[in-house]
Amino acid sequence: MSISIELKRAIYEENDARARAINETLRGRGIFTINILGGPGAGKTSFISRVAERLHASGEKLAVIEGDVASDIDTRLLRSLNVEAYQIETGGDCHLNAPMIEGILGRMSVADGSWLFIENIGNLVCPAEYVVGEDIKLVVASVAEGSDKPYKYPAAFAKSAACILTKIDLKEAVGFDEEFFRKGLAGTAPGALLLPLNGRTGEGADEITAWLRSVRTRVLEA
Amino acid sequence: MSISIELKRAIYEENDARARAINETLRGRGIFTINILGGPGAGKTSFISRVAERLHASGEKLAVIEGDVASDIDTRLLRSLNVEAYQIETGGDCHLNAPMIEGILGRMSVADGSWLFIENIGNLVCPAEYVVGEDIKLVVASVAEGSDKPYKYPAAFAKSAACILTKIDLKEAVGFDEEFFRKGLAGTAPGALLLPLNGRTGEGADEITAWLRSVRTRVLEA
Repeated sequence: MSISIELKRAIYEENDARARAINETLRGRGIFTINILGGPGAGKTSFISRVAERLHASGEKLAVIEGDVASDIDTRLLRSLNVEAYQIETGGDCHLNAPMIEGILGRMSVADGSWLFIENIGNLVCPAEYVVGEDIKLVVASVAEGSDKPYKYPAAFAKSAACILTKIDLKEAVGFDEEFFRKGLAGTAPGALLLPLNGRTGEGADEITAWLRSVRTRVLEA
Repeated sequence: MSISIELKRAIYEENDARARAINETLRGRGIFTINILGGPGAGKTSFISRVAERLHASGEKLAVIEGDVASDIDTRLLRSLNVEAYQIETGGDCHLNAPMIEGILGRMSVADGSWLFIENIGNLVCPAEYVVGEDIKLVVASVAEGSDKPYKYPAAFAKSAACILTKIDLKEAVGFDEEFFRKGLAGTAPGALLLPLNGRTGEGADEITAWLRSVRTRVLEA
């Protein structure tokens, strides 16, 4: 067991160092990077596509790295929406890590001053333990997953700057208890905002994009 | 890296051996054990509670082991429904393993001839890699998660005897493409049944329970 713990620490330390180097390089080029966490089907890709529409409309550049255990379904979807997207298929690994991002960045052409969205593997547990070079993490949770997620998956919420609450059109149908969810979020992640989104209509995406722009400015000026 | 792979193999082998021993002991006592996989909020606990109602109604005994990274919300819910439930809080671990099940079985009193439900951590990736002493795995997926899950998380589907498709009342609201889902399931897990469930009303639970009874008989007579 102690070998395993030692090894885990070494893996984390190596990963942290490489993630710091990635972040320094990207930030030096004016690229703002968001690491997106969330369970399977939470609406991470819809979130990206809705923000991308707004960034495109104002002439801003963005690129997306899609992480999946298998398939390139989301990458193909984003490309069909004219979003520059690149796929990492982990073939089993449950989270992205800094070396994977290093590897794919070497094969991408991200313009200076771009936004970079990294959609992590659909998993509310393991991705929370790894940095991949991001400026901020966001966690995407759908009302259909229930009101208890911040209590059950505290790390993903605690490490995120905001929680994007998706599929809000289903609130009544699923009996979503927003007060309980907010209480859990406040307890787990006192600094995290709750930002609602209807990925099907885009409702909420203007506010989310405005908030992301303000964070981006703050981060890149720091 | 090779140290990590060696270690992983050793962990799997040790886990497999302990899981086999658990399964032999349980099966020898006429206990049928189901390992339930699924993402966060897929409806795993609702599935268990709906089947439990039907087993209780016919005088059958059951016990539940609830796995969560944090909280005992589901255990308290099941106990409020008079289901004998026991909590494993992993404190960060992304899957249950055989030693955890060994540990908690030592503190539980499961009657001979019972059903044993093990609700794994809400995670469609890692739990698929570990056996915990079960006779069968089931995967629970909700229509709200989208139609592409069998393509994106193949291991969880491939290793399961059936897929419980939940929240079927939301099919139209979320635009669930059942044909695409069925195609993915057939490609990934050719032998797996698709069993629909509305956890809020119990629709589908009679059929699921009947199917589980037939599997149980087959397994315990083998």
